Amino acid sequence: MTRRNKAPKSVVKRLPIYLRVLDNLIRRDVEIISSRVLSEETGFTAEQIRKDLAYFGAFGTRGTGYNTSYLRERLLRIIGLDKQTKIIVVGFGHLGKALTRYNAGKNRYVDIVGVFDKKPGETGVEGLKVLPIDQLPKFMQKEKVKVAMLTVPADAAQDVTDLLVENGITAILNFAPVKLDVPEDVYVHNADLTTELQTLIYYASEDEKQHQAE
Amino acid sequence: MTRRNKAPKSVVKRLPIYLRVLDNLIRRDVEIISSRVLSEETGFTAEQIRKDLAYFGAFGTRGTGYNTSYLRERLLRIIGLDKQTKIIVVGFGHLGKALTRYNAGKNRYVDIVGVFDKKPGETGVEGLKVLPIDQLPKFMQKEKVKVAMLTVPADAAQDVTDLLVENGITAILNFAPVKLDVPEDVYVHNADLTTELQTLIYYASEDEKQHQAE
Repeated sequence: MTRRNKAPKSVVKRLPIYLRVLDNLIRRDVEIISSRVLSEETGFTAEQIRKDLAYFGAFGTRGTGYNTSYLRERLLRIIGLDKQTKIIVVGFGHLGKALTRYNAGKNRYVDIVGVFDKKPGETGVEGLKVLPIDQLPKFMQKEKVKVAMLTVPADAAQDVTDLLVENGITAILNFAPVKLDVPEDVYVHNADLTTELQTLIYYASEDEKQHQAE
Repeated sequence: MTRRNKAPKSVVKRLPIYLRVLDNLIRRDVEIISSRVLSEETGFTAEQIRKDLAYFGAFGTRGTGYNTSYLRERLLRIIGLDKQTKIIVVGFGHLGKALTRYNAGKNRYVDIVGVFDKKPGETGVEGLKVLPIDQLPKFMQKEKVKVAMLTVPADAAQDVTDLLVENGITAILNFAPVKLDVPEDVYVHNADLTTELQTLIYYASEDEKQHQAE
């Protein structure tokens, strides 16, 4: 299992993209795929894909390609999606509410077990009561929660992060627009719509320039 | 300008990532960067990077690398971030509110000019009044809006999309968990936290397996 530790962050970030492409291929009844086609579908080079997958063992057959269903199963297990992961949402403002509602219930591999806010007691979503932040330590210990979505305001984010770290968090999806200070063994992903918005703007201004040229 | 049209979607999606890396490098006072280092920072191969940037003209000097500030300026213009883009938010539920609040005012290149919902009149954010959906056609024509963030419920998403398309939308950032049917010249980006969540879960279950092995 220690083999998994060697994969750099950039490789890990590409795994869900491979998974999504495989899901689409399987839906289209594609059974075997070459790394060249996988390259066209993902935008990564075939060489990059072979290297990425090699971190977790060799899954392809030379000259034939990858079996889509087999590769998908392996990726699910590598990522850890073969079972549900307990998640807490900290910060129950508009974004916290939207995320809880979106993920609670219908998400196969995510189980939102608790919602926290400095203003507790507010009616929760999907049967979850909003708990006060000071109950967070006890809750995390009891439920063995390792993952949090953080949607508190920027000025509260670091304090809440420290509390999460003290109580054994290992991964944080951070929506607060600040860089969080965490120990090396805690993984933080900064959720950021900037990339999506910028791609959108590219296409919008593309169109504008075309019209101007007409 | 037609040169820009040839860039495939996969290339366009990488442009904001290059931009973010360049912003970080400039902040660290790095003036020149090789495609090899750019590769380490982005996770894309040096070959891929050279190919991507070549779509928009050659910006590097062979054997020296790219001037970070110059490349950044060029990318800003290529993407269309050298001016503000007008955006409307359609759907003023929790997510719509969070997105409007997050982007209104402080975002240099995005200008949220209107917010729409089937329940209008509710107090808006940042001086924006929530308008009824039936005012959308007139508003779009008048303000020449080409970009929308769509946060309506899944069952309303296609109808609203049809209305947006009829009134000249060119790009939609879709948060509704449905595949939208649009003409070929309209760009839809499906915002999706799945990738981020899955990466997070990888690190969480990684940690778990380590503990079990101890």
